[in-house]
Amino acid sequence: MNQDYIKADNWSIIEEGFDVERVKSSESLFSIGNGAMGQRANFEEHYSGETFQGSYIAGIYYPDKTKVGWWKNGYPEYFAKVLNAPNWIGIDIEINGENLDLHTCTSVRDYRRELNMKEGWYNRSFEATLKNGTEISVNVRRFLSLDLDEVGVIKYEITPLNKDSKIIYKPYIDAGVTNEDANWEEKFWEPLDVKHSENKAFVTARTFKTHFIVTTFMQNSILSNGKNLNITTENIESNKEKIQFIYAVAVAKGETSAIEKIGGYTVSLNHENTQHGAENAIITASAKGYDQLLQDQIASWAKIWEMSDITIDGDVKAQQGIRFNIFQLNQTYLGKDSRLNIGPKGFTGEKYGGSTYWDTEAYCIPFYMATKDQQVARNLLTYRYNQLDKAIENATKLGFSNGAALYPMVTMNGEECHNEWEITFEEIHRNGAIAFAIFNYYRFTGDYSYIPEKGLEVLIGIARFWHQRANFSTHKNKYMILGVTGPNEYENNVNNNFYTNYIAKWCLDYTFEQIQKVSIEYPSDHKRVTEKVKITDAELQSWKKVADNMYFPFSEELNVYLQQDGFLDKELVRVADLDRSQRPINQKWSWDRILRSPYIKQADVLQCFYFFEDHFTKEELNRNFEFYESFTVHESSLSPCVHSIQAAVLDKMEMAYTFYLRTSRLDLDDYNKEVEEGCHITSMAGTWMSIVEGFGGMRVKNDALHFSPKIPKEWNGYSFKINFRNQILKVSINHNDTQFSLEGATELTVFVNGKAVLVEPNSLVTV
Amino acid sequence: MNQDYIKADNWSIIEEGFDVERVKSSESLFSIGNGAMGQRANFEEHYSGETFQGSYIAGIYYPDKTKVGWWKNGYPEYFAKVLNAPNWIGIDIEINGENLDLHTCTSVRDYRRELNMKEGWYNRSFEATLKNGTEISVNVRRFLSLDLDEVGVIKYEITPLNKDSKIIYKPYIDAGVTNEDANWEEKFWEPLDVKHSENKAFVTARTFKTHFIVTTFMQNSILSNGKNLNITTENIESNKEKIQFIYAVAVAKGETSAIEKIGGYTVSLNHENTQHGAENAIITASAKGYDQLLQDQIASWAKIWEMSDITIDGDVKAQQGIRFNIFQLNQTYLGKDSRLNIGPKGFTGEKYGGSTYWDTEAYCIPFYMATKDQQVARNLLTYRYNQLDKAIENATKLGFSNGAALYPMVTMNGEECHNEWEITFEEIHRNGAIAFAIFNYYRFTGDYSYIPEKGLEVLIGIARFWHQRANFSTHKNKYMILGVTGPNEYENNVNNNFYTNYIAKWCLDYTFEQIQKVSIEYPSDHKRVTEKVKITDAELQSWKKVADNMYFPFSEELNVYLQQDGFLDKELVRVADLDRSQRPINQKWSWDRILRSPYIKQADVLQCFYFFEDHFTKEELNRNFEFYESFTVHESSLSPCVHSIQAAVLDKMEMAYTFYLRTSRLDLDDYNKEVEEGCHITSMAGTWMSIVEGFGGMRVKNDALHFSPKIPKEWNGYSFKINFRNQILKVSINHNDTQFSLEGATELTVFVNGKAVLVEPNSLVTV
Repeated sequence: MNQDYIKADNWSIIEEGFDVERVKSSESLFSIGNGAMGQRANFEEHYSGETFQGSYIAGIYYPDKTKVGWWKNGYPEYFAKVLNAPNWIGIDIEINGENLDLHTCTSVRDYRRELNMKEGWYNRSFEATLKNGTEISVNVRRFLSLDLDEVGVIKYEITPLNKDSKIIYKPYIDAGVTNEDANWEEKFWEPLDVKHSENKAFVTARTFKTHFIVTTFMQNSILSNGKNLNITTENIESNKEKIQFIYAVAVAKGETSAIEKIGGYTVSLNHENTQHGAENAIITASAKGYDQLLQDQIASWAKIWEMSDITIDGDVKAQQGIRFNIFQLNQTYLGKDSRLNIGPKGFTGEKYGGSTYWDTEAYCIPFYMATKDQQVARNLLTYRYNQLDKAIENATKLGFSNGAALYPMVTMNGEECHNEWEITFEEIHRNGAIAFAIFNYYRFTGDYSYIPEKGLEVLIGIARFWHQRANFSTHKNKYMILGVTGPNEYENNVNNNFYTNYIAKWCLDYTFEQIQKVSIEYPSDHKRVTEKVKITDAELQSWKKVADNMYFPFSEELNVYLQQDGFLDKELVRVADLDRSQRPINQKWSWDRILRSPYIKQADVLQCFYFFEDHFTKEELNRNFEFYESFTVHESSLSPCVHSIQAAVLDKMEMAYTFYLRTSRLDLDDYNKEVEEGCHITSMAGTWMSIVEGFGGMRVKNDALHFSPKIPKEWNGYSFKINFRNQILKVSINHNDTQFSLEGATELTVFVNGKAVLVEPNSLVTV
Repeated sequence: MNQDYIKADNWSIIEEGFDVERVKSSESLFSIGNGAMGQRANFEEHYSGETFQGSYIAGIYYPDKTKVGWWKNGYPEYFAKVLNAPNWIGIDIEINGENLDLHTCTSVRDYRRELNMKEGWYNRSFEATLKNGTEISVNVRRFLSLDLDEVGVIKYEITPLNKDSKIIYKPYIDAGVTNEDANWEEKFWEPLDVKHSENKAFVTARTFKTHFIVTTFMQNSILSNGKNLNITTENIESNKEKIQFIYAVAVAKGETSAIEKIGGYTVSLNHENTQHGAENAIITASAKGYDQLLQDQIASWAKIWEMSDITIDGDVKAQQGIRFNIFQLNQTYLGKDSRLNIGPKGFTGEKYGGSTYWDTEAYCIPFYMATKDQQVARNLLTYRYNQLDKAIENATKLGFSNGAALYPMVTMNGEECHNEWEITFEEIHRNGAIAFAIFNYYRFTGDYSYIPEKGLEVLIGIARFWHQRANFSTHKNKYMILGVTGPNEYENNVNNNFYTNYIAKWCLDYTFEQIQKVSIEYPSDHKRVTEKVKITDAELQSWKKVADNMYFPFSEELNVYLQQDGFLDKELVRVADLDRSQRPINQKWSWDRILRSPYIKQADVLQCFYFFEDHFTKEELNRNFEFYESFTVHESSLSPCVHSIQAAVLDKMEMAYTFYLRTSRLDLDDYNKEVEEGCHITSMAGTWMSIVEGFGGMRVKNDALHFSPKIPKEWNGYSFKINFRNQILKVSINHNDTQFSLEGATELTVFVNGKAVLVEPNSLVTV
């Protein structure tokens, strides 16, 4: 953890001073994205030091052949992973015959990066002395347009400080890129075509196997003191996958020269002809020009912040943390396209393959439901609906039948991509989260239509899986679920993981109820679905039998639910009593030692208490929280947020605040020493939950919003907004009171600590 | 299973008829070896059909970089594997301008392979018509000398049948070989030197990383109708790793031409200068000549058979099966060199890397103890003693301390080579078998000296491991061993595997006793060892506490020990009730399904009853056998032998016989459809145990041999020999009586069904 690395600031992420050791970390933290594409904060100019190059396009993936030491039946042949996309940001710079390279400059001064989250741009500035003695001042700004989401813009300004200089700009597009995480060092891109005209260039390439076609484009302008010189490239260097332009300018000492580069991607997902698409994108973008594009960008981000901002008064680091989380979530996924989803690293790295995990349903959907139009959450549900056939195929491969569906652990197109048996085959609780999200969507939005239209089929596939996956133990006269991995991945192949058994039973019950409800309220949908899936009353009764007789491990002695059958046989040394030098255990201990230890990676029994809070008493929550929290090492980014929420519920506010800081500044302070690999995007939604559901105590019960506001002592006040069924409610909380204000024309009754409060539109209600 | 493939014969393995589909299987079955080297039955001449080329040298390995999908802490960086060695058997043949290639001949007739186990040679003969119309008759004999174990001999005879022919022999050595199972398609051999003089050639190569130097050599003679023509090579083709000689001869129709090739390897393990070694090997071998070498071979095998043969009267397939097993064991390991061990595939394939497994201690040692000088078994024990430091290192890496030793699951030089966490880290019962072998060696040979000299240190390292590996469950007030994989690899990461807990407790108790015994009987060894390992009385008392309070899962209801804590929660459908189409489950089911099923790959609880038979009553054995046998699918080659022995003990003779056939003809009848990959060498020792310990009922109790002879109804009689403490006892059993005869000068009292029988030397005793 490095608390001095990123400067505290309410609206920006700021790094000051050039440190070669931090280049890769900053490349992650200063990443930019617009939902359709994104990239790490790689330098435009060549850098010979250590760097991790990454540009990504949403929905463009490659099925990399699985690498495995010991093949197990059922493993997938491929791991679909997000692709490192052709580089369009590159601009080699030559100054007085020397290539600009921060790694070889004799001095770099006043180096500063800023990611302005309010306005949605990234800026880098520095002064440097080259080996040839030239001193220059550089300022580079880059942003990816929210409005024209195929387009990004770079303005790269250079001012020679100590002599008149010859500057050569060499902007390029390079499709000769590879993934760092490629299993077999295969090439993923097949170059098809390189074209250019005037200051424009186009490189079209196709992904092997998946055959996505992408045209990467650029258009360059050279400016002097802000004025376009209207010069064209002197020369063109190109091969089958790369094209580079050459612009040479003489710049007097103290004058500022600049290159503006418009670039981006058009993809065959959206265009019949990506080349034409790219030409049009350039025309549209250049018609606006750099300044207008930047103004539009600021306005678009203002709109996002208007709805999704959370303010925190009196704690800059907490404020910066939550805004960084909200900013990254919006950079990654904007909910426009139901073919897309939320990769764990967004556009900030390759790890986890950019694929979809249960993170989406368990952590991200609440954020998107509350801060966007409900269509966004519905798109995320539809993504799974569209992959139902594949989930059924997946389950069939594992020996299930009759339309049972097992959603993949990791997926891009619906096919399972993961290949570690204890996860791939056994971390089946993911199926529960997907059903829970359907329930949660209806609970929050009140939009029941999704269930008869689409959700019911998904629920039935999932219920069938659980029904078949449980087995009857004659020994205990109960149904059990053997051989699973729960949310706590520090236990593998355990029997009767409480969380898994609980959500399995819940899925069976809930699906049963929804079938009844749809049969009454949407008879034609009921007929359509039940005929399609051929469900019988006998099958439903059999579900009921399994659900009613599900086994839940419980300790009478401790009065807590057991994480799994064998939990109490472990050596129950609390984290507080574990030698600090042994942590993080995932780096210090061999895997078997972790597995037989009582240490918990992330909320597991407590995840159940989070999802189904109202099924349990506060006393039960307290007992289980105190027991399991004492063994939790929080070595997953998804862990602290759930603990923060529950600590807040239990009035353990100091603990709640500590967890909040940990979740919100996980990447900024690099708690896990791995931010180089990218940011933890999906857990950022958990940070949002920590404030809104934790401190704010927001819940939806019986179609109404409930709050039980609390505030960390470190804060003066905080506020957030909720889109509740198309009504925008702003909630502001300080140490004395809670204020509500409502947009629109209709009143809304909310509950504060159980007491009804009527909020009239456009008037402030203080409680 | 193909019962017609190999012809039934008492002494030979015979294949008749050329079938391209069987080439790879026969390459395994007709493999030859002499303990120091060996090779698959690849054709000498070029073959363009499917083949799996393999030549191997004992003790020459390569650390192949580990391949793994998801790295876990503690995984080894390398997997040491047996190397495909340079090819010295190759002889390209050109007849009237066409290369002889059985895959392209227009007809192949009277094709016959014979592996003569009695005399230790392999013969291949056929008639073929080439595309150019030449008809030839070919006879090739090959053997690897037992006496000169660096030398092999080939006699390749050709008779043109329909015309006078020009035959060109092109014998070669090729070090440009690769492993089929190489993880990264790396080259393992670096060629150093290619030399030749007259009819001799030498190719010296060095293994990368391990730097073993090997000179592969050949000397060729061309014969006509049995007479050496004394011609030299016409021409030499060579590059940096291959050398080929060219001999052209005119052969009249009906005349027989031949090439005799002497070849083999000299290795830096045994020679300062491998080139000189090779020259000397050729001199020694050619001084003898082909005929003498063959006579010596027959005589040497006669000596082996004299001691280790088992005869079975009235059941040719059973006879052939057991001899094949005994033959292969002797081809693989002769016990001369404590640096060597017994790879699971011997010299017949690459699978399992040719490394050492617990198979050696659990299955092979009894065979070698009873059929060889006791030094052989002592060498196998010493192999582990020499690797004790590495075992301590291995345990340290996994978090153990104070000299605790965990022997590797798979090893070549003492370092762990396996990388599947559920096996590598958790199949720790192997440590128990290594201790058991020490006990077993003393029990059988009466040679206690090994324990004070070497064994005690090994025992202490192992006991320390178990002591630390067990944890106290406050819940059950017992010591437990969590997170293990037992011998049944169809369960992973289970708690309290009965076998593991039992052998752990036994190791602690046994080591404790040996320390006391050595302290009294060998005080200076006791002082040396205890000072070296710094053991205290407090530590010993702590061992005792763990051993005395070890937990053993047991079902009161079923009155059987439980394979592990969760066994009874499984869906207990017996194998007999499992749809036949679902088997073998390791091919039909996904891994998770196998894991949560009750099906058992190989003896697990029953392995405990096998090792510690005298700790349990026959009634207990019967109950546990009937319970676990009903769930056992025997998908490990190591499974049927233990079940056969126990079925015999329990008078279930039909079952015992069925299991015997399955174990003894596993490869010959290719039960598991995988003989192409090589033969199952280590389980062959289990076949021997099935007869001697199963049907013969041989046990050693209180320093005496006990027998409880039984005989399958299919047999007329059978006999075997036992080297019991340097006395050679022959046991012959038929349906009426048991006969004993003894070599040497001293009498021996044995027990038959508990009754003492005095056997005088050189006289037959019938019981």
